[in-house]
Amino acid sequence: MSLYVHKYGGTSVGTSEKIQNIAQKLAHEKNKTGYDLVVVVSAMRGETDRMTKLARGIQAAPSAKQMDVLLSTGEQVTISLLCMALEALGQKAVSYTGSQVKIITDDSHGKARIEDIETAKIKADLDDGRIVVVAGFQGVTADGIITTLGRGGSDTTAVALAAALKADECRIYTDVDGVYTTDPRVEPKARRLDKITFEEMLEMASLGSKILQIRSVEFAGKYNVPLRVLSTFIEGDGTLITYEDDDMEKALISGIAFNRDEAKVTLSGVQDMPGIASAILKPISAANIEIDMIVQNIAEDKTTDFTFTVHRNDYDKTMKILQNIRAQLGAQKVLGDDKIVKVSIVGVGMRSHAGIAGQMFTALADEGINIQMISTSEIKISVVVDEKYLELAVRTLHESFGLSQE
Amino acid sequence: MSLYVHKYGGTSVGTSEKIQNIAQKLAHEKNKTGYDLVVVVSAMRGETDRMTKLARGIQAAPSAKQMDVLLSTGEQVTISLLCMALEALGQKAVSYTGSQVKIITDDSHGKARIEDIETAKIKADLDDGRIVVVAGFQGVTADGIITTLGRGGSDTTAVALAAALKADECRIYTDVDGVYTTDPRVEPKARRLDKITFEEMLEMASLGSKILQIRSVEFAGKYNVPLRVLSTFIEGDGTLITYEDDDMEKALISGIAFNRDEAKVTLSGVQDMPGIASAILKPISAANIEIDMIVQNIAEDKTTDFTFTVHRNDYDKTMKILQNIRAQLGAQKVLGDDKIVKVSIVGVGMRSHAGIAGQMFTALADEGINIQMISTSEIKISVVVDEKYLELAVRTLHESFGLSQE
Repeated sequence: MSLYVHKYGGTSVGTSEKIQNIAQKLAHEKNKTGYDLVVVVSAMRGETDRMTKLARGIQAAPSAKQMDVLLSTGEQVTISLLCMALEALGQKAVSYTGSQVKIITDDSHGKARIEDIETAKIKADLDDGRIVVVAGFQGVTADGIITTLGRGGSDTTAVALAAALKADECRIYTDVDGVYTTDPRVEPKARRLDKITFEEMLEMASLGSKILQIRSVEFAGKYNVPLRVLSTFIEGDGTLITYEDDDMEKALISGIAFNRDEAKVTLSGVQDMPGIASAILKPISAANIEIDMIVQNIAEDKTTDFTFTVHRNDYDKTMKILQNIRAQLGAQKVLGDDKIVKVSIVGVGMRSHAGIAGQMFTALADEGINIQMISTSEIKISVVVDEKYLELAVRTLHESFGLSQE
Repeated sequence: MSLYVHKYGGTSVGTSEKIQNIAQKLAHEKNKTGYDLVVVVSAMRGETDRMTKLARGIQAAPSAKQMDVLLSTGEQVTISLLCMALEALGQKAVSYTGSQVKIITDDSHGKARIEDIETAKIKADLDDGRIVVVAGFQGVTADGIITTLGRGGSDTTAVALAAALKADECRIYTDVDGVYTTDPRVEPKARRLDKITFEEMLEMASLGSKILQIRSVEFAGKYNVPLRVLSTFIEGDGTLITYEDDDMEKALISGIAFNRDEAKVTLSGVQDMPGIASAILKPISAANIEIDMIVQNIAEDKTTDFTFTVHRNDYDKTMKILQNIRAQLGAQKVLGDDKIVKVSIVGVGMRSHAGIAGQMFTALADEGINIQMISTSEIKISVVVDEKYLELAVRTLHESFGLSQE
């Protein structure tokens, strides 16, 4: 018997009507195909914010443990409503919270990791012809304490369930109809990809194509769960995320990702000696600031410039920390710029093709776009440019690597 | 170590501020006395209605099983918020849903009965100096399915926990400061009772003094849990509900209860033969109509009048059923009156004192109040009178039995 895991996010279950629509689609699919269906749902849109506000009304910084108890009620509401809607259509349905399943996690409240999933009860329900509705985003420790998986955790729940149940496919229903070569709002010629590899998707996701949570893609890759992103509202096949295979599109580059949320800071004229990078980055990470790109130029005159990027929200804090440690590290200046963006080309094709970087830099130079930083990995090349060039850079690269053509 | 179970209802936890106030009171008590504290809370006022509306938007008659999944989120929100508020005050606190405790119930969804409570984890937390916050109203079947105890079920949770933990007292905090000799809105001279017996409280509760859920009083009586009703908002000792003891107030009558929600129906001129009562009441109970008082007069001419009272909401339905079965039962007429009230005097004192009924009937007669029906039990006497006499009857009896005097 084929088994499909569906996942619907907060926007997809945002109102009673939308929940009823999903129930209709599920009932239709069940009646037509007879497939086993497991459905993972998020909290209704707005609920998490409402509850967070409620908690903040009590305490400025509520404990992560109690926030998990609070927030996990959101998905519990959705599972009950979706089951009611399915029952109204004559379907047999059953609801499970994360604790009930049990989706066993570690005890990192607010960002717990799934360790194990019990599948016996779900399998029995499926054998009994029931549509199984599971609360996403949440789990429980071995001691029975409620946990949540953190932002976007419902995707992870869906993939983990698909892996545990050996599902034929995990289908993530969302408000976009697939993964695009780049953001269509920036490049109208962007087109939907039929397939993309897990690795490419990871680079696309972490670079700002916020369709899927990174951990869920990692998980899907690790357990080889075919993952499909498709629209809740529009018919279509979406994009299948899977391993590279022979009939994979032969493009060098699969997509252009970008991130507007970065800021760049530089400590210039620091002594070029062992341990200097760690001395700079220690107080940054101690302040819980995440660093993305790091570039250190070759030393001249025994001094070097050390540049890295952080989230724009952390820009002021980062500048302050650097100013504090400047003298102590014997650095000359602290420079910063929060008007920058990162643009990346992503593709498994570049592994076996030289000259991709050259093509990228030439295409940008031809448009007069100055590259401020460069960082490369096996399947992506990222550059930092002035934010005013974002759209131009994306469109230029999209055209240059032939992504606009069918 | 003394152990107290507190219970706060929906009005008491209706806003962030109110939850913070309760946390302050609990922290103060914990710091001052060092007592072990277990706190049972309801859903925030309005939440249950909001969720019920949401469910009705999906399905006119949602399954009781899914309603339980939905509604049980209400108390889960409150336990997390109260723990946050306690933590903000530097208290160690821990939250438990019904499933987590586990409060094991049968599977009568929407009106489940508690069968067992696991206390090991709670005891360990108390030993560790934690204030234990438990979601009221909810439980879980032995199979792990979420259940709710039905309206007012949080009282039952509190009493059941107090019994299981052998608490010194179960304190029900509510919006009244205790149990009164009668409703002060009807008789301004009503006074708060320091003590009342379980049996009296049961009669008072079932007769319309809606302070405590009946099942919780039964439970407290059965397991001999001292129960105290007191105000969340006003300082005071409230009313202790306990077994009759020597220093119990020596009043014959503890209070005057009344119920405005009744209607009276009569099938007159029915054949006085065995099985007639059951023939009349069978279709009524088949229609899920609850019957309160039943009076059958002694037969004259081999016919009798059969009268009973139902909830006013069921009056029309009851009249229709009686009209349908009238001919078949050989009855002459169907009579009805939905403008009646029931007034009762309650007191363990009447057990050992003759003449109480006489005193009651005389007092009413002196005011020209006609008694339409009479029903008696060991510790209460109820009469049905025209609704226009309600206030007069209550005040007359309150005065006559000396309840207004301190």
